[in-house]
Amino acid sequence: MRNLNQDTITQAVIARFAQTPEPRLKEVVTNLVQHLHAFARETHLTEAEWAQGIEFLTATGQKCDDQRQEFILLSDVLGLSMLTVAMNNDKPQGCTEATVVGPFHVEGAPHYALGADVANGAVGQPCLVRGRVLGLGGEAVPNAVIEVWQADAAGNYDVQYADLAGHRARGVLRSDAEGGFHFRSIVAEPYPIPNDGPVGELLKATRRHPWRPAHLHFMIKAEGYETLTTHVFRNGDPYLDSDAVFGVRQSLVADWVQQPDGMFSLDFDFVLNPSSHD
Amino acid sequence: MRNLNQDTITQAVIARFAQTPEPRLKEVVTNLVQHLHAFARETHLTEAEWAQGIEFLTATGQKCDDQRQEFILLSDVLGLSMLTVAMNNDKPQGCTEATVVGPFHVEGAPHYALGADVANGAVGQPCLVRGRVLGLGGEAVPNAVIEVWQADAAGNYDVQYADLAGHRARGVLRSDAEGGFHFRSIVAEPYPIPNDGPVGELLKATRRHPWRPAHLHFMIKAEGYETLTTHVFRNGDPYLDSDAVFGVRQSLVADWVQQPDGMFSLDFDFVLNPSSHD
Repeated sequence: MRNLNQDTITQAVIARFAQTPEPRLKEVVTNLVQHLHAFARETHLTEAEWAQGIEFLTATGQKCDDQRQEFILLSDVLGLSMLTVAMNNDKPQGCTEATVVGPFHVEGAPHYALGADVANGAVGQPCLVRGRVLGLGGEAVPNAVIEVWQADAAGNYDVQYADLAGHRARGVLRSDAEGGFHFRSIVAEPYPIPNDGPVGELLKATRRHPWRPAHLHFMIKAEGYETLTTHVFRNGDPYLDSDAVFGVRQSLVADWVQQPDGMFSLDFDFVLNPSSHD
Repeated sequence: MRNLNQDTITQAVIARFAQTPEPRLKEVVTNLVQHLHAFARETHLTEAEWAQGIEFLTATGQKCDDQRQEFILLSDVLGLSMLTVAMNNDKPQGCTEATVVGPFHVEGAPHYALGADVANGAVGQPCLVRGRVLGLGGEAVPNAVIEVWQADAAGNYDVQYADLAGHRARGVLRSDAEGGFHFRSIVAEPYPIPNDGPVGELLKATRRHPWRPAHLHFMIKAEGYETLTTHVFRNGDPYLDSDAVFGVRQSLVADWVQQPDGMFSLDFDFVLNPSSHD
């Protein structure tokens, strides 16, 4: 194990992981080493580039706090998040499709009664959101836990405001006996992902725009069903075909319709996949 | 660019980087996306594993400060550092071989006159280190900047002590008119790499030992020559064949010899590669 060179080091490193007791960890780390080394070898990574990579990853980690997750953002813009979602959510036809969770889901959102205004002061055009939570067989799913969150009209989630006390445009509701839900919020607008950190620098250097099409996040949990993490995207948005995080599903695109009284409304039903082990 | 799945997303992400103006950045990021996605696809990475990976990278970044570089440590234990060194230091026969810089090189080491004791109070068996800096043609290299650093007998570098004022077992010297240098320090001992962070958890979970064979770091800079970053390893060390960071070169192994007066001595000459563009 001396004098390792670029032709011998990969197998030597993999051999060093041979005693890993957990087979899945061994499989993942072995594959990771193979691809990490192949990346360095195929690009003939220089020592200066290696050092830049170390600096980039360090800065990405240090940008994270309890309100900001820059590594999720990095995973999102590299398409790794959506690839992972796609591989793990191959649901039966008829189920609502999943998409990325994104970096702005946080624990501790306030609970609201049906009909409440989850905007809680967030700026935007008022709207009503209505729908039902159903099972794959068409059955109502009562008492489902429905978590919603979205950016305001300025393009910011509540947690992006340093000095905001309490949550805005974010809340948890429960479906009624017929699986129905309704709440007030604000109309979703397109916004740029946070670009004041390392991920923003990467997008600038590669001339990629940071925009996401307008969307409303949902995470729906109900006993006997798989958890659904998804968005509803707004029809007509100019970024539907170039989402910075590759998350758009045509089946999730819907209309926020302006009513005669000026109020917007969105109607969307969710269909959950039964758990295989419940 | 809607409804991307695991078969189509990789090309879509690569296409999004198509406008990158700097060709090298485009090449590196394209290759990175290919291998990152292949890793996820081949392991069929689950959403829980993806989240664990995000947490691991975040914790690794947050463990870094101006005295600790956990991402270099991660690169080291995955063999990426040594692979990069090996690819970029294919020097002519006769030159001293390079090895990893490691996570404990810091700027601002104190300057010493030849003959000084760079230990500066670090605990260990005293020793004298002597040698010459030469060019590939055998010529003396005067006035070379020789930076040295090492762990103490307890296995710690100075920067690992939270409350240590000033540097220990770390210094910068200059070679004399004949390329010669000599200084006092302490005998190198084997030590475990820091294992109180995410990298330590990885080593524990994979049953890898954290030990490095005893070594003394050198970084040598001289006008007209390529910078040499290397170690001298101690002959007879039990970890020479299982260095936790894969850095051992047989040509860098030497004896610390105990003299009749009890003092140890190490003699080692360094041969620099002329710069191609000086």
